[in-house]
Amino acid sequence: MSASDPSLVRTAAELDEADPLAGFRNEFVHSETEADLIYLDGNSLGRPARQSLEAARALLDQQWPSRLIRGWNEGWFEIPQRIGNRIAELLGASSGEVVLADATSVCLYKAAVAALGARPDRTRIITDDQNFPSDIQVLRAAARTVGPDHEVVVVPTDGIHASLDGVRDALAGDAGDGPALLALSQVSYRSGWCWDMAEATAVAHEAGALVLWDLCHSVGAVPIDLTAANVDLAVGCTYKYLNGGPGSPAFIYVSSGLPQMVNPIVGWYGSDDPMGFDFDAGPALDASRFLTGTPPVLSSSPVGPAVELMLEAGIDRLRAKSVAMTERFIALVDEHLVPLGFEVRSPRDFQRRGSHVSLSHPEAQAVGQALLHEESVVPDFRPPDFLRFGFAPIYLRFADVDEAVARIMRVVEGGGIDRWRDAAPIVP
Amino acid sequence: MSASDPSLVRTAAELDEADPLAGFRNEFVHSETEADLIYLDGNSLGRPARQSLEAARALLDQQWPSRLIRGWNEGWFEIPQRIGNRIAELLGASSGEVVLADATSVCLYKAAVAALGARPDRTRIITDDQNFPSDIQVLRAAARTVGPDHEVVVVPTDGIHASLDGVRDALAGDAGDGPALLALSQVSYRSGWCWDMAEATAVAHEAGALVLWDLCHSVGAVPIDLTAANVDLAVGCTYKYLNGGPGSPAFIYVSSGLPQMVNPIVGWYGSDDPMGFDFDAGPALDASRFLTGTPPVLSSSPVGPAVELMLEAGIDRLRAKSVAMTERFIALVDEHLVPLGFEVRSPRDFQRRGSHVSLSHPEAQAVGQALLHEESVVPDFRPPDFLRFGFAPIYLRFADVDEAVARIMRVVEGGGIDRWRDAAPIVP
Repeated sequence: MSASDPSLVRTAAELDEADPLAGFRNEFVHSETEADLIYLDGNSLGRPARQSLEAARALLDQQWPSRLIRGWNEGWFEIPQRIGNRIAELLGASSGEVVLADATSVCLYKAAVAALGARPDRTRIITDDQNFPSDIQVLRAAARTVGPDHEVVVVPTDGIHASLDGVRDALAGDAGDGPALLALSQVSYRSGWCWDMAEATAVAHEAGALVLWDLCHSVGAVPIDLTAANVDLAVGCTYKYLNGGPGSPAFIYVSSGLPQMVNPIVGWYGSDDPMGFDFDAGPALDASRFLTGTPPVLSSSPVGPAVELMLEAGIDRLRAKSVAMTERFIALVDEHLVPLGFEVRSPRDFQRRGSHVSLSHPEAQAVGQALLHEESVVPDFRPPDFLRFGFAPIYLRFADVDEAVARIMRVVEGGGIDRWRDAAPIVP
Repeated sequence: MSASDPSLVRTAAELDEADPLAGFRNEFVHSETEADLIYLDGNSLGRPARQSLEAARALLDQQWPSRLIRGWNEGWFEIPQRIGNRIAELLGASSGEVVLADATSVCLYKAAVAALGARPDRTRIITDDQNFPSDIQVLRAAARTVGPDHEVVVVPTDGIHASLDGVRDALAGDAGDGPALLALSQVSYRSGWCWDMAEATAVAHEAGALVLWDLCHSVGAVPIDLTAANVDLAVGCTYKYLNGGPGSPAFIYVSSGLPQMVNPIVGWYGSDDPMGFDFDAGPALDASRFLTGTPPVLSSSPVGPAVELMLEAGIDRLRAKSVAMTERFIALVDEHLVPLGFEVRSPRDFQRRGSHVSLSHPEAQAVGQALLHEESVVPDFRPPDFLRFGFAPIYLRFADVDEAVARIMRVVEGGGIDRWRDAAPIVP
């Protein structure tokens, strides 16, 4: 390892020793039967915190069986707002601007249709190919829903870096009616590209468009200040860096400055009098109006304690550790893995990078399977040819970074690719 | 009690002794600290089955912490279809026609927008005031989404019985373009009215409308045969008689004969290649195309075992016991509670009644609170003036029916109303 690279000057042991977040690792559950596991897929599904599991067990052991319907009067009813308000603190949002709701894609649909409704004379949604394919599908669905003239423009990128110039050009467009909405993922699921949210938002606003951010890959990993960036709408999931559990609910942010935003899927939970059973009830006043149906109480139960841990750790400390980990990983990749056929497919500027690093390899899928089945390393594969290595700073150690690189080397040099060439991929 | 009324000829003890479903009670959890509780709100939130809690605990104890992202490859990914196919057996639907998805209101929106899309020359949705207020709100939202000319016609009823004639008139209407959709709740949340599904569906089809049934209050309580009734679309929840837990996911049924139905909220989970990460992917072929985002795994986990119990008990036996219970309850109400100011606000024809009985009382809310806080009876209150008593046949005893009536009498005769006149209502 090169002592000339500042990220490798100190040993992993030294960094772990000095890590102010090291104690948080013990707040999470680590399987004793697989003690050597290096889990680098917290950007797909986070590890459970002990307190999250306790909260869910309390529902199963006590609240549901003993309190039954009365549970709704004893804390369940306000789950979307209570947890939403805590997530708001991670987002630089105010109380009442964030609610837990639905799946991300449903929230995205609501937000996109609401935005189009607020820009009735405009027909274009701008996004880019670094966005989730699901988001692009949902945006197209929202456009189809609103009208036959609406369309989604997907700005092409080099596959690693997003392009503010490309976005600016698309916002200007050649249509006379101007853009309605810019909808982007703050951190790309592919390359890990991280937008300067305030900058891109300002560019969209200058063009008269509203802005909708998908925070799935950034919340809990990157400092976010929706208020400072003057963001209109945002959505995100809670099962990646927030560690809310498989399929835990999404959240939606609606700026309190945009009371004209209308939830297209009005339902009882978003009304101003859910228990009035009045089908003429009006919408709730804050982001609660974007709620629709009954929230999934059990799937919500791990989210609250997990968010509390993030707040306790502090996003600035989490970000600092995350940057240190991805910088170290990239330096080790350059030294040990590039000679073995890997390429770094994430931005090298840490300010433009989230908390995962993507590596391409001609046989990325086989490498991933070999890591999983022979080396107890869990990355994830994304077609056609890259592997993502996610560094969740709240429960990973610097030693895991070094050890992961050592195991990747062993897979390639030890024939793992040949043994796993035809195996099925890991999802999702 | 009158021996002349056939429903009261046998004692509760005799009926419980002869009940072929009696053993199922022990499959459910009953709190030991409240052994005298009579839970008559299974139509709002069912009791947990032991196996349901075990399934959820397995997720918390093993699958999530130990398998992490790998869990998606070990059974989570197919949850919507696997549980959907079992629910299909309760609905008279075929494999591939039912998936677990979202909240009921979101599913209803998808189905209503899809139906309007399939009837592009028609602008009217017909429903009635026995339907959930949330459903009427959602139908209006779907109408607004599709176009400014679309409208929802709410057929008025007498508050107890639905009106097929009223529906027929509304379907005929005075607009020239014909009705697009008839959307009804099979069993009304209010009076317990139960539609003849095949008859109402046929009337709508004769008028050229599609049909969308909400099965929230009927699934698990009433025999349903969507195929025989030629139903186009249906939705329902799993947390009432199916006992799936607070906020467990809804389901959506899309007839396999209607491939032209398009999910308005397309997302990755409903595509024909969810793991391809291709934003041009087409829709899945069966009802899976109505999926949108990642399913709530934890909230789904109790549903499967709970549905298995329903299938094992058998809907015909469940219905027979349910009818016997509601008939007995009504006979006891007539004898003991009508003299105390109660009125039966449910259909007296058991064929037109689901598994709950609504009673009105001038001080229904206070009666409900007194039952809850003084008598360990859990009904639920619905504004303005009625209480619902739900009889979930899989875990209730006939003795509970008799005892509930005795306790209601005690509340009214013992001053409970005065003591609870100003208390807050139970939700939801």
